Amino acid sequence: MTKQIEVAMFGAGRIGNIHAGNVARHPGAKLRYVVDVHAPSAEALAAKHGARVASVEEALADKEVGAVVIGSSTDTHADLIKRAAAAGKAIFCEKPVDLDVERARACAKAVKDAGVTCMIGFQRRFDPTFAALKSRLEAGEIGEAEVLIVTSRDPAPPPASYIAHSGGVFKDMLIHDFDIFRWILGGEAVSVHATGGCPGLPEVAAAGDISHAAVTLRTRSGALCQINTSRRSAYGYDQRFEVLGSKGLLQAGNVRPTQVVAWNEHNISSDKPEAFFLERYRDAYALEIAHFFDALVNGTPVRTTIEDGIKALELAELATQSWREGKALECSI
Amino acid sequence: MTKQIEVAMFGAGRIGNIHAGNVARHPGAKLRYVVDVHAPSAEALAAKHGARVASVEEALADKEVGAVVIGSSTDTHADLIKRAAAAGKAIFCEKPVDLDVERARACAKAVKDAGVTCMIGFQRRFDPTFAALKSRLEAGEIGEAEVLIVTSRDPAPPPASYIAHSGGVFKDMLIHDFDIFRWILGGEAVSVHATGGCPGLPEVAAAGDISHAAVTLRTRSGALCQINTSRRSAYGYDQRFEVLGSKGLLQAGNVRPTQVVAWNEHNISSDKPEAFFLERYRDAYALEIAHFFDALVNGTPVRTTIEDGIKALELAELATQSWREGKALECSI
Amino acid sequence: MTKQIEVAMFGAGRIGNIHAGNVARHPGAKLRYVVDVHAPSAEALAAKHGARVASVEEALADKEVGAVVIGSSTDTHADLIKRAAAAGKAIFCEKPVDLDVERARACAKAVKDAGVTCMIGFQRRFDPTFAALKSRLEAGEIGEAEVLIVTSRDPAPPPASYIAHSGGVFKDMLIHDFDIFRWILGGEAVSVHATGGCPGLPEVAAAGDISHAAVTLRTRSGALCQINTSRRSAYGYDQRFEVLGSKGLLQAGNVRPTQVVAWNEHNISSDKPEAFFLERYRDAYALEIAHFFDALVNGTPVRTTIEDGIKALELAELATQSWREGKALECSI
Amino acid sequence: MTKQIEVAMFGAGRIGNIHAGNVARHPGAKLRYVVDVHAPSAEALAAKHGARVASVEEALADKEVGAVVIGSSTDTHADLIKRAAAAGKAIFCEKPVDLDVERARACAKAVKDAGVTCMIGFQRRFDPTFAALKSRLEAGEIGEAEVLIVTSRDPAPPPASYIAHSGGVFKDMLIHDFDIFRWILGGEAVSVHATGGCPGLPEVAAAGDISHAAVTLRTRSGALCQINTSRRSAYGYDQRFEVLGSKGLLQAGNVRPTQVVAWNEHNISSDKPEAFFLERYRDAYALEIAHFFDALVNGTPVRTTIEDGIKALELAELATQSWREGKALECSI
Repeated sequence: MTKQIEVAMFGAGRIGNIHAGNVARHPGAKLRYVVDVHAPSAEALAAKHGARVASVEEALADKEVGAVVIGSSTDTHADLIKRAAAAGKAIFCEKPVDLDVERARACAKAVKDAGVTCMIGFQRRFDPTFAALKSRLEAGEIGEAEVLIVTSRDPAPPPASYIAHSGGVFKDMLIHDFDIFRWILGGEAVSVHATGGCPGLPEVAAAGDISHAAVTLRTRSGALCQINTSRRSAYGYDQRFEVLGSKGLLQAGNVRPTQVVAWNEHNISSDKPEAFFLERYRDAYALEIAHFFDALVNGTPVRTTIEDGIKALELAELATQSWREGKALECSI
Repeated sequence: MTKQIEVAMFGAGRIGNIHAGNVARHPGAKLRYVVDVHAPSAEALAAKHGARVASVEEALADKEVGAVVIGSSTDTHADLIKRAAAAGKAIFCEKPVDLDVERARACAKAVKDAGVTCMIGFQRRFDPTFAALKSRLEAGEIGEAEVLIVTSRDPAPPPASYIAHSGGVFKDMLIHDFDIFRWILGGEAVSVHATGGCPGLPEVAAAGDISHAAVTLRTRSGALCQINTSRRSAYGYDQRFEVLGSKGLLQAGNVRPTQVVAWNEHNISSDKPEAFFLERYRDAYALEIAHFFDALVNGTPVRTTIEDGIKALELAELATQSWREGKALECSI
Repeated sequence: MTKQIEVAMFGAGRIGNIHAGNVARHPGAKLRYVVDVHAPSAEALAAKHGARVASVEEALADKEVGAVVIGSSTDTHADLIKRAAAAGKAIFCEKPVDLDVERARACAKAVKDAGVTCMIGFQRRFDPTFAALKSRLEAGEIGEAEVLIVTSRDPAPPPASYIAHSGGVFKDMLIHDFDIFRWILGGEAVSVHATGGCPGLPEVAAAGDISHAAVTLRTRSGALCQINTSRRSAYGYDQRFEVLGSKGLLQAGNVRPTQVVAWNEHNISSDKPEAFFLERYRDAYALEIAHFFDALVNGTPVRTTIEDGIKALELAELATQSWREGKALECSI
Repeated sequence: MTKQIEVAMFGAGRIGNIHAGNVARHPGAKLRYVVDVHAPSAEALAAKHGARVASVEEALADKEVGAVVIGSSTDTHADLIKRAAAAGKAIFCEKPVDLDVERARACAKAVKDAGVTCMIGFQRRFDPTFAALKSRLEAGEIGEAEVLIVTSRDPAPPPASYIAHSGGVFKDMLIHDFDIFRWILGGEAVSVHATGGCPGLPEVAAAGDISHAAVTLRTRSGALCQINTSRRSAYGYDQRFEVLGSKGLLQAGNVRPTQVVAWNEHNISSDKPEAFFLERYRDAYALEIAHFFDALVNGTPVRTTIEDGIKALELAELATQSWREGKALECSI
C-alpha cells in the first residue's frame, strides 16, 4: 500500500468539515492536524477524524505533513498560502486566493518560487453534470462553442455585515462563474460589461453592493458569454448553464433531490433544485479533493491552478469597475 | 349577424398568405382585395379566398374597405400606413413600422392625426405560452419581476443580400425581443449595452452585420434584461424566455411538434422545437388578427400600437449604436 | 377545381358540431344537410355552415349527397349505417358501430354488400403524437414491438344514468384502447384478462359497471399489452402509451395547453394535460375527417374500417366477460 | 461513544462488497469477519476493511458478533438464517429468504422462536425517490391509492444457466415488485393474474422461463396493480412506478447519471437511466444498512421483516402458478 499523504486542515467551519470528511475518505490521504482559531470547532473536527489540533506553526513545521487544505476565512488565504509554500507543502485552497489582485499575484509568485503544487477550489469543474458537458464539448459534439449563458442564483442574501466585507458580488459570487466562462469557452476576455441593481433588496444597496448582476464577456474569437446572477431565489439554489455551438446546444441543469412527479388539479410538479451549494456540489467537493490527492500521488498536474484563481479574480475586478463606472471595458486577460 | 369588415390585404408573399388566411377565417372580416406588385402572387391569393386583385389606389379609394392589413416588404410600410391613415382605414401592419426612426415617427403622427386604429404585428404577445406567462406575472404569481432572460435564435441566416438591407440584426431580429422586454418588464430602459460577433459566419460580417448578439437592458426600477440571439441554430428555431421575480420564476418554453419520447441505447430524446416562425407562431398569427378585428368590432383598444412599434425600433437603434461604438449607452425610452 | 362531395351530417350535438366544422373547412367537402331529432340543434348547426335541415329520408334520397357523417347517439348508428349503405353513400361513423356485436356484424355485411366506403371514427390514430410514434415504430426504430402499456383516464365519470346504458366501461371507454392495441402491436389477441373495481365511486358500482379497469392482452407472437383505465382523474384527461421494442422504447405523452414552467418555494410545475377529448384530440378530429374525404376523392382506402370497429368491439365484449366471470379467456380475434 | 455492533459478513461477491462497504461506513457497526467459500474473495474483502476471514462456525460462535449480514447465494440463505437465529444474532438477509415458500416459513419460525431481529433486503423501499413518494402518499397528498402501475426492466437477461436455477422470473425479478405492491397499496391481494412470453429471447424459453411478464393484482378494497417486466431493455435499467389516487397521481421516475441535455439537428436528448441496480440503488443500499443498525442500536423495529419476505414470495409463487395454468387465481395473502 502506498504511503498516505499526511494533511493539515486549516479551518474547521462548514466548508472545513466538508473538506476534512473528503480527505478522511480518500485512501491516499490522512488527516493529521486541524487548525482553527476557534478551539472548540478545531477539537470537534479533529476528534471526528482521529486527528490532532495544532497551531499553524506546528502544522507547517511538521515534516510529516505533505499537504495543507485551506478552508479558513478568505482574509487568511494569502498568508497561509505563502507560509505553506515556504514550508514546501502542497496546497489546496478554497477560492478566492484573495480579494486583492496584487496580493493574489504575490501568492502565485510565492507558489512558483517554492515549486509546490497549488490547487484552487473551483469545485464546479468537478460537478458530474458540468464535467460531462465539458467532455462532450471537447469531443466536438456541438462544434465550436459560440455562446455561453450562465444562470447563478443564491437562495437568499447573506447578512449585510457579511456583504460589506465580501468584496462585492462579483468577487464573492461570480468568481465561480468567471471560472466557468474561462473553462467552457477556453479563451480569454477582450471586453467586459457589468451592470446591476438591488430590486427588492435595499439592504444590499445600503451595504454598498448589488444583489442582481448581468455580465457580458466577449472573447478574442468572437464568442459571447452572458452571466446573470441574483442573491435571492425563492425556489432555492439555481446553477445552470448552456453552450450554443455551431452544431447544437448543450445544457447543464440543476439537480433535484428526488425523481417524484406529482399531478393534481392544479399542475404537474417536480422537486425544486437542491437547496444550496453544500447539497448541490456534494459530489463535486469529494471529486476535487480526490483529484488533488490523486495528482499529488501520481505527479500529474492539477486542473485548477492558482493562475486560474487569479484570472477569475481579475475578471471580477474588471466587472466591479465596469459596474461602478457604467462602462464597457476592453481588456486582455 | 354583424356586418363584416371588408379588408384590403397588401402583400401576397409568405406572411401575406398567413394573414389573408386568418382574415378569411375570422367571422367579423371579409377579404375584399389583394394587392401585390407581383401579379401572379396577388391573383393566386385572391382566388384562394374569393377576393379580387386591386391596385393600392383602388383598394384605398373603395369606401367599403374598412381595414387594411400590410404584409408587404418593409420599405413599403411607411408609405402604406400614411396613405391608409389618410383614407381613414383601420391599419394592421407587420413589424417594423420602418427601419428609420424618424420615418416611423412620421407614420405615428399620420395615424394620430387621422384618428385611425393602427396595430403593429408583434405576434409573440399572442403566443399562448407567452400570453399565459404574462397573465400569471400580472396576477402576482412571482411577485415583482426583477430579471428577464430572452433566448432568440433563428435556424439559419438569410442570404447576405438580404442581410445587407435588413437594417442589421437589432432591427431585423431583435425588434421582437425588445418588444418582449417592454411587455414583460413593463418599464422603459435607462441603459442599453450591446455587443456581438460572427463566430463561424464570416459572410454575415462581410455584409456589415453580426450574427450573434448579446444585449443588456436596465429599467429605472433596477430590473435587468439579457437577450441573446443568433442567426444560426443547428436544432432549429429557439424562442424562450424566463422571468425571475421576488417569489419565483416563470419560464416560457419552445413548442414541440409531437409528444413522442424515444429511449434507446444512447439516450432519451424528444422532438426538437417547431422549425421556424410560421410553425412556432401559427396560433399567435391567428390570434393577433382575431384581436385586431375584435377590437375594431367592439371599439376596444389594440394591444400593440404604433407607439409600441416605435419604442422597440428606438431600442434597436440604440443597441446598434452601442454595438458599433463599443459603449454602454444611457437612455430614457 | 374538383367537384366537392356533398355531405349529410347526422347528429348536431357536441361531436356533431366538431365533425360539421371539420367538414366545412375541408376543401373537398360541402355540408348540405344537418339531421337531428332535436330541431333547434339541427337548425343552429345548419345555419352556422350554410346548410339545410333535413330528415333522414330526405338526406339519403338526395342523389347529390355523396357521403354521410354519423355523429348521432350510439343506438342510431347501426340503422343509419345500413340505410346509408343501401342508398350508396360513403359513410363516416363515430365509434362504436353498435354495442351489440351481432348487430355490428350485420352492418359490416350491409356495407360490404353495398360496396360503399365505411370509416369508423377511431380518431386517436390521427393524433399527431400517436401517428408519429406509429410511423417511427413501422420504420423499425425500436425493432420488434414486445410490450404495450396504455394509460387512459377520463377526468370525471358521466352521470349514473349514462353509465347504465353505456354498454359498460369496456365498450364505452376502452374500445379506443383496444383499437390502439390492434394498431400498435399489429397482431390479434390470443388471450384476454380483465378485472376492476370502483374504489371511491360506489355510484358506478350501483349502475352495474366498474370505474377502474385493468386489462391484459397477449398476441400470438407473445407480445403483451396492459391497459389501465379510470373514469376519474383529478388532474384531467390522461392519454398516454408506451411501446417497448427489442431496440428501445417509444412513449406517446399528453399534450399541455402551454409551455409555461413555474418555479417557486414549493416545486417546479407545468400545465396539467388538455382537459378532455375535445381539446386533446382537436387536431385528430380534423385530420380523420380530412383523411376520409381525401380517401373518397383519391379513391384510396380508409385507415379505420368497419372491420376495425368490429374487432375492437369483440375485444370489449371479451373483456367484459372476463371481468364478469373472473377468468382469463382464450380467444382468436 | 456507543459501542459498535460487531458484524459477520456472509458472501464476498458483488452484493457482499456493497454491504460490507456500507457496514464499514456506518458509525454504529464494525466489520469483524468475512465469510465466503471462495477464499480469495473473502480475503480481499476482509483486507479492504480491516476484517478477518472466518468460517461460518467461527463467526457464529464468537460472542462479540452481534449481527450477521447475509449476501451469499440464494440457496444458502435459509440455512444461514436458521443458524444465525439459533446463535442469537441479529440478521440482515438479502432477498429472497428462499425460493421455496415452506423453507422460508421455517426460517420465519426459527427467527420468531429465537426472538432475534431479522430484516430482509428490499432496498427499493429505501430509495430516496420511492421513499419520498411513499411519505407523500401517507401524508394524504393524493387521497386514497387506487391504481399502481409498476415498470421493472432489466438491461439484459442473465445467462441461461442462471435462469434455469433462478426460480423463474416471478421469484427472481418480480419479488421486488410484489414488495412494492404491498408497500404502496398497503393491502393484500385477493386475486392474481400473470401471463408472459419470450418475444425475441428464445433462449429464455429454452431455460423454462419467460422474459416478459404482465401481472395484475387486486386488493380487497378494489385497488388495482399492474406490473410489467422484461429481462431486456435496450436503454438500460428501468425502474418506475406511478400511483393514481382519488386526488391525483404520484410518479417515481428513473435516476439519470447527469443533468446534461443536448439539442441537435435530430432531437433533444438527456441521459438514459443509471445502468443497473448497483448504480440505481447505491444510496438505497447504504440507507437500508443504516436503517438496520440504527434499529438495532435504538431498539426500534425494522421496516422490512421476514414476514414481508414471505408475503412477496407467496405472491411470486401464485403468479408463477397463474402463468403456468393460464388462469386468474383468487387468494388471500
